[in-house]
Amino acid sequence: MKTLFERITILFENGEVKRDAYLLVEDERISYIGEERPDGTFDRTICGEGKLLCPGFYNGHTHVPMTLFRGYAENLPLSRWLHEKIFPAEDKLYPEAVHAAAMLSAAEMIKCGTVSFSDMYFFCDEIVDATVQSGLKANISRSTVAFTPNIKAEDDSRFLESVELFKKYHNTANGRIKIDMSIHAEYSTMPASCRYISDFAVQHGLGIQIHLSETRSEHEECISRYGVTPTEFFEQNGVFRAPVIAAHCVHLTDNDMQILAKNGATAVHNPASNLKLGSGVMRLSELAKAGVNITLGTDGAASNNTIDIMKEAYLAAILQKGTTGRTDEFNSSFFVTMLTANGAKMQGRADAGHIKEGYRADLVMLDMDMLHTLPIYDPCDSFLYCTNSSNVAMTMVDGKILYENGEFKTLDIEKIKADFKNITKTYFQN
Amino acid sequence: MKTLFERITILFENGEVKRDAYLLVEDERISYIGEERPDGTFDRTICGEGKLLCPGFYNGHTHVPMTLFRGYAENLPLSRWLHEKIFPAEDKLYPEAVHAAAMLSAAEMIKCGTVSFSDMYFFCDEIVDATVQSGLKANISRSTVAFTPNIKAEDDSRFLESVELFKKYHNTANGRIKIDMSIHAEYSTMPASCRYISDFAVQHGLGIQIHLSETRSEHEECISRYGVTPTEFFEQNGVFRAPVIAAHCVHLTDNDMQILAKNGATAVHNPASNLKLGSGVMRLSELAKAGVNITLGTDGAASNNTIDIMKEAYLAAILQKGTTGRTDEFNSSFFVTMLTANGAKMQGRADAGHIKEGYRADLVMLDMDMLHTLPIYDPCDSFLYCTNSSNVAMTMVDGKILYENGEFKTLDIEKIKADFKNITKTYFQN
Repeated sequence: MKTLFERITILFENGEVKRDAYLLVEDERISYIGEERPDGTFDRTICGEGKLLCPGFYNGHTHVPMTLFRGYAENLPLSRWLHEKIFPAEDKLYPEAVHAAAMLSAAEMIKCGTVSFSDMYFFCDEIVDATVQSGLKANISRSTVAFTPNIKAEDDSRFLESVELFKKYHNTANGRIKIDMSIHAEYSTMPASCRYISDFAVQHGLGIQIHLSETRSEHEECISRYGVTPTEFFEQNGVFRAPVIAAHCVHLTDNDMQILAKNGATAVHNPASNLKLGSGVMRLSELAKAGVNITLGTDGAASNNTIDIMKEAYLAAILQKGTTGRTDEFNSSFFVTMLTANGAKMQGRADAGHIKEGYRADLVMLDMDMLHTLPIYDPCDSFLYCTNSSNVAMTMVDGKILYENGEFKTLDIEKIKADFKNITKTYFQN
Repeated sequence: MKTLFERITILFENGEVKRDAYLLVEDERISYIGEERPDGTFDRTICGEGKLLCPGFYNGHTHVPMTLFRGYAENLPLSRWLHEKIFPAEDKLYPEAVHAAAMLSAAEMIKCGTVSFSDMYFFCDEIVDATVQSGLKANISRSTVAFTPNIKAEDDSRFLESVELFKKYHNTANGRIKIDMSIHAEYSTMPASCRYISDFAVQHGLGIQIHLSETRSEHEECISRYGVTPTEFFEQNGVFRAPVIAAHCVHLTDNDMQILAKNGATAVHNPASNLKLGSGVMRLSELAKAGVNITLGTDGAASNNTIDIMKEAYLAAILQKGTTGRTDEFNSSFFVTMLTANGAKMQGRADAGHIKEGYRADLVMLDMDMLHTLPIYDPCDSFLYCTNSSNVAMTMVDGKILYENGEFKTLDIEKIKADFKNITKTYFQN
């Protein structure tokens, strides 16, 4: 299968722009980028007029089944949100509900130009199935908590579930599905468990998804408990020997940032969720200066409320300026890289996240000829500050078109909506 | 003309919700709201299934011609943004360019559910014409600066232009167009000019649009210059005798807020622009506690970059939680009221901004049956946190449909885009 994009403007992962370019996708990879039309015949040619072709977007932290709880718990403090609303709601979960929500979420993400996401939740078989059906990529992890001190790996059912997932799904679906390990958070995991989870990750070359210093109280309670920060706690317990994907990172110390940087960990910035739950604002400047790999995440729909990663990029950019006053600190390209190449790096996808010959054709085509995106002086700036998901004209993963001009190519969207509505209609009645 | 909305969910300006309701629009007003289908025949019936009917949205502060400069000056500090980019760009303005931009902006606002806006700029004849053509409402003011000390009203050409505008357009187009006076800002206006401008406003019952304490330096330089804050300066010079529409209000003191409250002034919150230009975050809690009428504004597209007022409501809500940590301080309804009833109050439109029998039929119908808005537990919460402009299925002003299911009813959208692109293509070449 050969698909040629003709005379299109390309926005690369580093923010560079090439106009009037040709880009050829052969099967699942980009085979040519240039100013000359390549020779040969093509199965499909796509006119690039008024369009912008970008590397696909990565959602670095989410919980896709939580679209079930979108709008269910609003205007509450985090502790009441969790204990009065979310935990009881999660207690009622069952596989069909998770599957229906994961299907809806997959569709929503595709519509917003997402090509891959990192997920931490449970009923992961259902999440894997929805992801495979949708055509998306994902690093999926079983959210693991371990409150029992000195429990052994062989007695930890959640850990064993992770191991099972790894065996069944890691690197399946042509490498689209990867399994990460998970440590839910410092406050929910005993030191011994951190050890065997990270041992397993190191042994099998897996990433570990964690929540890290999301709230001030979480950060400070850890210091009271152990005399160290959550980051130092994880370091002491061997977690950073594996590539860590650390969500939130709102209350990190400078030393925490050094630990992340020297261990090649990724900090996932979730600006909407951190604002909405009153957690605060990640210190982006300091993390960038420390050299940490930084990506963007939506968190779950219960605290966002959409899982639109384009919104997070815009929000991260303006929030950074507004809270520091340093409006010229970052160029727009910084946020484009967060959204694309840094995401692929976080997920261990060495041949993705870049618009480059030989790389996977994970691409988003935006229609820039819309009222709210005119005029265009600099396509990179326009992308960051003007576009939203309504500009997404096409989402392509591994050379396969998943969505084009409002139509889903892999998903029966009416059935997905109907299934989801059936479940949410009665979910809280039982 | 009789239009009946059948079995629709109504979100009122105070956040209350009525399901399965009937709402009848007769000519330009709402004539019936109830649970029973009204008798009679109707020119049009609209099925309310999956829809949410809201009061139309007010954009409290913008400069519509600035869509010309959307994306033109990015990632700069405010002073360089203004002096190196925006002021020189504005020096090149000419009527056709302003008209083309105002037409594009009108379309963009209609698509985002805006029914009325407050504008401060120049070439106002062009802005009035675009507004009248579009079917929108607006309070339009000629941005007035006056650097000459003790200049007399009769020698102030900008003031005289405002007077001219008032005579030509105030309360025209069936009351849709109102003319406000304008005082650009404290730093750009001499005390004597504040006097004659506010005298004129008082004499003719007009509002005065001002920029107020947008940046810290503006606020502090005023204190150095006059020994009082910008708000106190305006009070001393009689400005608050008229209804003031004060944009930004980021750096107000508690006493400033008292002055606004006791004089019935409106503070316009522009969260996106204030973040993006590094100005900071308005103290919403304190303004609300002081009893100030608070609305939302996009500011111009050069600093936003869209003029989508729905985005501002969402942003105001999450920003407030994130910067204060008080996630339960405001219900969603607070922001709905800012977006609707408070806007009508600000603009002196006594029979608008409410869904109420006898009031103007300024309505927005949202399609809630979209991926990113499912499920719906509380329509008011869903509206604030989940919807965006892609949910807007209809915008109606004075009973007239301006936009429905992607189609503009009053505007030739292809011509508007073509005209705008022609102008912006060459704008900076001369």
